[in-house]
Amino acid sequence: MSYTDTSVQEINACMQEAWNAFHVYRKKSLKERAALMRAIAKELESCGDHLIEVAMRETNLPEARLRGERGRTIFQLNSYADACERGDWLEARIDTAIPDKVPPKPDIRKMLVPLGPVVVYGASNFPFAYSTAGGDTACALAAGCPVIVKAHPAHEHTSEIVADAIHKAVAYLNLPKGVFQHVYGKSIEVGKTLIQHPHTKAVGFTGSYGAGKQLFDWANERKEPIPVFAEMGSVNPVFLLPEKLNAAATDIANMYAGSITLGVGQFCTNPGLIIGIESEALTTFTHDLGKAIQKIQPAPMLHTGIAKAYAAKKELALMQDEVHLVAEGETPSAVENPDGGLQGLATVATASAQAFLKNPVLHQEVFGPYSLIIRCANKEEMLAVAQHLEGQLTATLMATENDILKHDELVEAVKNICGRFILNSVPTGVEVCLSMQHGGPFPATTDSRFTSVGADGIKRFARPIAFQNWSNGLLPDELKNENLLGIIRTVNNELTKSTV
Amino acid sequence: MSYTDTSVQEINACMQEAWNAFHVYRKKSLKERAALMRAIAKELESCGDHLIEVAMRETNLPEARLRGERGRTIFQLNSYADACERGDWLEARIDTAIPDKVPPKPDIRKMLVPLGPVVVYGASNFPFAYSTAGGDTACALAAGCPVIVKAHPAHEHTSEIVADAIHKAVAYLNLPKGVFQHVYGKSIEVGKTLIQHPHTKAVGFTGSYGAGKQLFDWANERKEPIPVFAEMGSVNPVFLLPEKLNAAATDIANMYAGSITLGVGQFCTNPGLIIGIESEALTTFTHDLGKAIQKIQPAPMLHTGIAKAYAAKKELALMQDEVHLVAEGETPSAVENPDGGLQGLATVATASAQAFLKNPVLHQEVFGPYSLIIRCANKEEMLAVAQHLEGQLTATLMATENDILKHDELVEAVKNICGRFILNSVPTGVEVCLSMQHGGPFPATTDSRFTSVGADGIKRFARPIAFQNWSNGLLPDELKNENLLGIIRTVNNELTKSTV
Repeated sequence: MSYTDTSVQEINACMQEAWNAFHVYRKKSLKERAALMRAIAKELESCGDHLIEVAMRETNLPEARLRGERGRTIFQLNSYADACERGDWLEARIDTAIPDKVPPKPDIRKMLVPLGPVVVYGASNFPFAYSTAGGDTACALAAGCPVIVKAHPAHEHTSEIVADAIHKAVAYLNLPKGVFQHVYGKSIEVGKTLIQHPHTKAVGFTGSYGAGKQLFDWANERKEPIPVFAEMGSVNPVFLLPEKLNAAATDIANMYAGSITLGVGQFCTNPGLIIGIESEALTTFTHDLGKAIQKIQPAPMLHTGIAKAYAAKKELALMQDEVHLVAEGETPSAVENPDGGLQGLATVATASAQAFLKNPVLHQEVFGPYSLIIRCANKEEMLAVAQHLEGQLTATLMATENDILKHDELVEAVKNICGRFILNSVPTGVEVCLSMQHGGPFPATTDSRFTSVGADGIKRFARPIAFQNWSNGLLPDELKNENLLGIIRTVNNELTKSTV
Repeated sequence: MSYTDTSVQEINACMQEAWNAFHVYRKKSLKERAALMRAIAKELESCGDHLIEVAMRETNLPEARLRGERGRTIFQLNSYADACERGDWLEARIDTAIPDKVPPKPDIRKMLVPLGPVVVYGASNFPFAYSTAGGDTACALAAGCPVIVKAHPAHEHTSEIVADAIHKAVAYLNLPKGVFQHVYGKSIEVGKTLIQHPHTKAVGFTGSYGAGKQLFDWANERKEPIPVFAEMGSVNPVFLLPEKLNAAATDIANMYAGSITLGVGQFCTNPGLIIGIESEALTTFTHDLGKAIQKIQPAPMLHTGIAKAYAAKKELALMQDEVHLVAEGETPSAVENPDGGLQGLATVATASAQAFLKNPVLHQEVFGPYSLIIRCANKEEMLAVAQHLEGQLTATLMATENDILKHDELVEAVKNICGRFILNSVPTGVEVCLSMQHGGPFPATTDSRFTSVGADGIKRFARPIAFQNWSNGLLPDELKNENLLGIIRTVNNELTKSTV
């Protein structure tokens, strides 16, 4: 199946359509927005096996994974719809007038309103959950923003089927068709045209550093710069603290062999860096991780481009001074799989902390089933490694309580660079819930103050507006004295669901 | 009094000091941060008359205004300290584990943590409230960030006195001196060096579009881009709707003569654009506003640079095709005042909507006691003007309930471009409270999702971090089961102060 890139003229028409739809959709109640999201979830379910089959063909991902991912996408839509309706995210604030203050204090009431049309660039590695009807789309629709999705070139047919499901939901609810639009673009010109259009007011992106940073730069070069939330991955460092490692080297090795190679390592939270202090336990861990990796069956990666990039980046890493191969998985068949995917070879390497500290190449993400074990001479070197790391989506400590108390400075340094801080577990597996933070300091994302997973992601696409001196009848329902929607609001500095 | 620019070497030392202090200060409890803010407020009070006298000399602002502004600054520090301690801004979220879910759901808990050292560039027009110990400094300290203030070149001595007061408070509380530092810079190189330093993690700015946009661009050109909240002013349009104007043309004219010339027009919320529909009432309004403006006494502006820029920008505006002078205030003395300030001449001009729509010069802010009345042929032209305006800090409607119902499209268009939407009042006067939004779509600010007034401004300088699978004893107090701080938290999607 082949899709033609959407033309500049068509994109202009799309953006005008989105702009017109914005003026209708932003006035829709939280209930109506939630209804749309739930209708999309239902339509996604109705796509049935056909959607799964097409996605399997386009992405090489196994059936069970894709069924699970669709389930997660439906859960996202429904749970963000619940959050949308609950309305906590509106940050409604009311300060009532104090007429006898000098000067008199006026009545002021504030809530979040949508930014405008949002362009979403989906991920290759999550054809459902971070693509067409994924988290960014769900958040933007909850916020009251029309959405324009550029289909990921690696799964355009899958994207088309999902887009048709969304179109059906939009039509079913009698919303303007500009509320959701779908475009194609293999060339970077399409991406650029979309982000440069004056009616585009925000961007959601999941993918590589190169592409995400380019979008960020284009957005800031505009006459009117716009917010870009680009999630650009990371190496997700794991720190093995001595007491814990000593007690459980083999268990940790087996746990991490699974995490490194889960989904052929194609997760943005894949643990690409494991840091330990030279010891018998670290030797055992390295040996056992290698042994476990060797048993990993080869599996095709998402597409040829990703497989080739993985092979090249891994080769580059292995070529660096003082980097040694620990183990590779079972040798894959030399034959490309029928859909052009290439099999990704699980790999673990090791280097000294000194080699790591002086070589920026080793700090880069190798997207795939790869991890680098860093051997530190002592506690101080481990701290130095932590202090030299860039921003990360996640960081993990494998540690006993005693370890943590003894490594206070390390714990603080690691906390300072990550969005999610995990203890004695693996970073893969991103729970969809309000407490999730899927974000992190640059270069993990372009703005560490936001998340792309969990209903707090809605706030990426909304801004506060304060109404001053409006009479009750003219205020939006969310801010009226009666609290018609029963939402939580901060009234004169006190959180309450009460009327004013 | 003359101050030498801080050298690059000194700035580097400053930033290292701030970075070291960050590691101490961010671990301080909400109570300890609040104590610092309250101590600064107390020290500011203790500066007594001397501070007011120096500020009067440097800024030409009258004594009563400066005393009032210091009071406001003290109120800001104290009320943000209260908000800091209350902890709502932490957005604490707890989702407890569900071990028998497939796959098991881990315990995840999230809260905001500080970004790191914040550089603050103060405003010329608010030597206290938006400068050295102003809103940005208060918000950053509440968030847990060390602050580096670059003294505004127009009031360096004032800034030094305030900085000394802050230093005293920092010392009194035994905090590292890197928690607050003060530098000087007349040259743009100082500003650039500060924003480009790798230890700088966020920026607060209040001032002109040119300077704010330059900081924003520098921040985005960094290897690690950082968030900049630049409040760059606006023209704060006021829409006179027909029924209201007909009923109260003279009253509105008098009210606005006061607002336009308040503080010699040197407020970022100064109403620089007044839009009405051609009618007898608009003629009356224009005439009466002119009459009121003519009676305005001349007063010195903040400094020579601002006075010259005002004269030049006003002249440029008045030179444009189809722009006519309505009235000027009393002619000021030709003699410059002893401190180099020049007197700002209150001025009102008028132009047709057609002239306005085709001329970008007329959309620019003329910082000073100036306003332009736009005469629209009809309702449709008024809507076109609203749709052509850029982002604004505020927008105002002078309207009856009937007017609002009849101008639905206009109301929506105006709502879409402003941060604060005022009904039947004036935009000058920015209340310090949680419901305040002092921000707005670009170019009013560089990020419409944040505010620089009110305790929500703290969130500019903080980011969420999620703790996954941590045992209760190891979690920060804010997230422990016991809720030791008694803060509000979202526990399993329900806002509560209860224990877990």
